[in-house]
Amino acid sequence: MKLSEIKRYLKKEKLDAIVLFNKSPAFKYFVGEDFEHGMMFLTKKGNYLLLSPLYSPKFKGFKVVNWERFKQDFAAFTKKNRIKRVGTDTSGLFVAQRNFLKKHFKLADSSRFLLALRETKTSEELARIRKACKLTDSMFSQIIANFKKFKTEKDILRFIKIKALEADADISFEPIVASGSNAVIAHHVPSSKLKKGFLVLDFGVKYQGYLADMTRTLYLGKPSSKEVLLYSKVLAIQEACIERVKQGMGAGSLYSYSTRLFGKDAKYFVHGLGHGIGVEIHEKPNLGLKSKDIMKKGMVFTIEPGYYNQKTGIGIRIEDDILLLGGNKKEVLTKSTKKLICIK
Amino acid sequence: MKLSEIKRYLKKEKLDAIVLFNKSPAFKYFVGEDFEHGMMFLTKKGNYLLLSPLYSPKFKGFKVVNWERFKQDFAAFTKKNRIKRVGTDTSGLFVAQRNFLKKHFKLADSSRFLLALRETKTSEELARIRKACKLTDSMFSQIIANFKKFKTEKDILRFIKIKALEADADISFEPIVASGSNAVIAHHVPSSKLKKGFLVLDFGVKYQGYLADMTRTLYLGKPSSKEVLLYSKVLAIQEACIERVKQGMGAGSLYSYSTRLFGKDAKYFVHGLGHGIGVEIHEKPNLGLKSKDIMKKGMVFTIEPGYYNQKTGIGIRIEDDILLLGGNKKEVLTKSTKKLICIK
Repeated sequence: MKLSEIKRYLKKEKLDAIVLFNKSPAFKYFVGEDFEHGMMFLTKKGNYLLLSPLYSPKFKGFKVVNWERFKQDFAAFTKKNRIKRVGTDTSGLFVAQRNFLKKHFKLADSSRFLLALRETKTSEELARIRKACKLTDSMFSQIIANFKKFKTEKDILRFIKIKALEADADISFEPIVASGSNAVIAHHVPSSKLKKGFLVLDFGVKYQGYLADMTRTLYLGKPSSKEVLLYSKVLAIQEACIERVKQGMGAGSLYSYSTRLFGKDAKYFVHGLGHGIGVEIHEKPNLGLKSKDIMKKGMVFTIEPGYYNQKTGIGIRIEDDILLLGGNKKEVLTKSTKKLICIK
Repeated sequence: MKLSEIKRYLKKEKLDAIVLFNKSPAFKYFVGEDFEHGMMFLTKKGNYLLLSPLYSPKFKGFKVVNWERFKQDFAAFTKKNRIKRVGTDTSGLFVAQRNFLKKHFKLADSSRFLLALRETKTSEELARIRKACKLTDSMFSQIIANFKKFKTEKDILRFIKIKALEADADISFEPIVASGSNAVIAHHVPSSKLKKGFLVLDFGVKYQGYLADMTRTLYLGKPSSKEVLLYSKVLAIQEACIERVKQGMGAGSLYSYSTRLFGKDAKYFVHGLGHGIGVEIHEKPNLGLKSKDIMKKGMVFTIEPGYYNQKTGIGIRIEDDILLLGGNKKEVLTKSTKKLICIK
């Protein structure tokens, strides 16, 4: 994916290669799926995966180089391909790995370039994200249909994980299931019995390495009119922000817009308005107060205002995944209903 | 866990703290479970978790410090606790994180100390590993009992993952299910229909952060007498190595012993004899040819000889988890039968 841009970058920066280890999100990005092993060289001539011979994967666009004796084969490989100056991903490179590379190469920091590369999505990536969002919507329907079976937050957590596996997919991240006053903790770890009140469900399905991320807030029991009003306010803000986002806009200004809409309740909105998604759950753009990111055509990101009141014990969050099509056109990729569902 | 040893180490090395980020296995080790967020300071006075206020976990032995504004609160925390010289885990520290720490502290490399600390297990850790092994044995029984349902390698993979979740546990690593000639690839990614011949099943259940890792080789169809003989040879080598391992022995010499037993077949044994397990799937000791690790009382490790013949397409591996009790006493923690199970 976008391997052609790599060649241009190497030429411009006078580098012989970009080298990535398996823990770098960029590694996952280039092979197109989760693969927890190896080392990657992206060069002007071609792309190579250096792997132990115990593995035998096939990745599009890569030649697999199996080593028998790592040190000797590594040296032979780099000599043959004349690799001397390499770019690294400092945000996904362990210090010990950097120390190893330093013995062999002149190092440059390519992390900004690699992050920027993942900012906008190719059609192949979009197809996977769309599928992940579709599976996430289907999961939400199944949660609602099976709700009577659930007694604890963990029951819902387990249900999400098992249903994802049954669909030959996986979860994007450890789901958040927060009922009653737990909902005021944005990243609550599911633990207790389901309590009356708002229930925040933040989850997503991962499909072929790509992540969806959606939040819906339900109500267990009968909400007061004040609670219904609060929910409507968060929803109206979420929809207004989706309406407002457009190409060329500063991500920080969209965040500011959301806090203006919250008005006096802005102090209860304790996190960013959203974040890019892709092979990682937090990518560019960052939709927070201080963000300097500019909204671009082809970006996929969440919009997720929330309200967390420690005093009243009320927590509400509504989150969709958005694809910016260009201009002020956008596509909401997660399509589950946002009408407040109340479960008696 | 072993927090008292930290204090001694800090004193000896004249450090004010050890600082760890969430991606370091040592981080997981100290909180005792998977937790994918935050930063940890281990000091002589106490232990602190620095977390975003969006999280609210409780970990034994730690004070949670929530920041409101990271930069200011970080500076205030380190000033208050007079933290100037810190040890880091270079094998679990990203370069970008190191660059951040360098701005605030004098850095030392504590990675060897941290790795050595995890080498032998406390009774609390052993209880979790025992439970993980027990769940792994139970999983194996369930696989055998349900075998008629499986048509593909992936069916078994999915079954393992779902059964683990149903037991309120998780998998230790992506299971290996390799049938027929796929079995010659030690780390085969499950994909194809179940083929006749040997079937390598390498999997484990994770319980409260601690991992089990077991391999059994079955046979689909009726094995030839030559195949039965080969299986018996691998099994005999595995049992002889378990018999031989003892406190004070060099791990490398145990590996050499296994290759002597393989004799002319040693060239088909393409990986190490085993590895420590704990919060990570590969810890100390390393039971490979060049290992300089010494076998110690309280170590938990795998013993897993294998035979992989590319020409005949035969692959066999048998793996147990072993606790070294002291002297030449040991406990085999995984207890599933090693008699060759043939499935018609």
